[in-house]
Amino acid sequence: MPSTAPTPRTTIRRKANRGHYDRTTVYAIIDDAFLCTVAFSDDGSVHCLPMACWREGDHLYLHGARNSRLIQALSRQECAVSIAHVDGLVLARSAMHHSMNYRSVAIYGRCEVVAAEADKRTALAAFLEHVSPGRKARVRPPSAAELSGTTVLRLPLSEAAAKIRNWGVEDDADDLAIPVWAGVLPLGRQVGRALPEPGCANYPPPALAAALEQAGATT
Amino acid sequence: MPSTAPTPRTTIRRKANRGHYDRTTVYAIIDDAFLCTVAFSDDGSVHCLPMACWREGDHLYLHGARNSRLIQALSRQECAVSIAHVDGLVLARSAMHHSMNYRSVAIYGRCEVVAAEADKRTALAAFLEHVSPGRKARVRPPSAAELSGTTVLRLPLSEAAAKIRNWGVEDDADDLAIPVWAGVLPLGRQVGRALPEPGCANYPPPALAAALEQAGATT
Repeated sequence: MPSTAPTPRTTIRRKANRGHYDRTTVYAIIDDAFLCTVAFSDDGSVHCLPMACWREGDHLYLHGARNSRLIQALSRQECAVSIAHVDGLVLARSAMHHSMNYRSVAIYGRCEVVAAEADKRTALAAFLEHVSPGRKARVRPPSAAELSGTTVLRLPLSEAAAKIRNWGVEDDADDLAIPVWAGVLPLGRQVGRALPEPGCANYPPPALAAALEQAGATT
Repeated sequence: MPSTAPTPRTTIRRKANRGHYDRTTVYAIIDDAFLCTVAFSDDGSVHCLPMACWREGDHLYLHGARNSRLIQALSRQECAVSIAHVDGLVLARSAMHHSMNYRSVAIYGRCEVVAAEADKRTALAAFLEHVSPGRKARVRPPSAAELSGTTVLRLPLSEAAAKIRNWGVEDDADDLAIPVWAGVLPLGRQVGRALPEPGCANYPPPALAAALEQAGATT
């Protein structure tokens, strides 16, 4: 897959060995997220807020109430987006060599408004598919009023970079004999037992929950 | 505990019933995070990047290499910080009533540099305690050179607000008979089996890993 060529804003200078610019790597990190963090300038301040997100092709999609200040601001100016997953705590023998394993993406750009109703429907169906695969055929689709009250934005993934740390402890040679446990404590996402609404217990549960049932999990 | 009085920037207007301004609520969300996302303006762009974080008293602490552009920028201007935990997927009977359960905090302010060496030592020890309680007494403390190459910043938590959704599905009355599973799929943080460095298997594992062993987890 072609790369997102590094720009002055996405070139990773510090710990450059952690930088990745190929779309396969960048997109896999995006696709593992339900939330991103969006930053923009408005009214003389920088703002930094979480938003639900999903990807289709070479765009990151966002949505929100049409009349919200957030959506208004993102419709008219540049923004920066961050997605970060913490994958582990790296526990070293020296205090300053402690670290984290993580996968993160930084994106710069300007959102486009997805204006046509059919395109909005397609985009929102993709969001539902991202959150719960197979679900879109079973639920009530958006009404015209719901659609018109919602703005869908898409941010081109043309200026994006990933940063990844996914290895073990990097202690100084002089510290290797310090008698303390060192290593990586992996962290990940846990899916808990599904909590059905009243009257729903007999319908097939969503895919993520069904996988958990099969695995015999009890959390 | 006193509140962080809402300011024009932290007053939650949209879905205001999700807003919280008391320090107990705000601090609990911060204390559950290893990473925050920091936004600031520099060189004509807004930037949005993940950073490790921890809290002591009424400050959020950050750190980084003294000569990094990120630390330089945060040392001289205002920033905005976001912390967000996804706690569940809310799967409704209608597409547009799907939601997420989450806990998030937005913070605005200007970082102060923690200048005195003793204060830097105290702050970095608190970070280690946050990541792995009880560990700081067992590892090599920072050297003078390590300390001088690291800048510790602290952001006053005087302009901060939380936003929380932690309940079930909110479908329209007309949609309640749609024959589809609806409910909440809880999401959380999973601690995996610790991966010791060579030669470390006989030392007591960190507290989070020990708790997992006791629970008989196998992941």
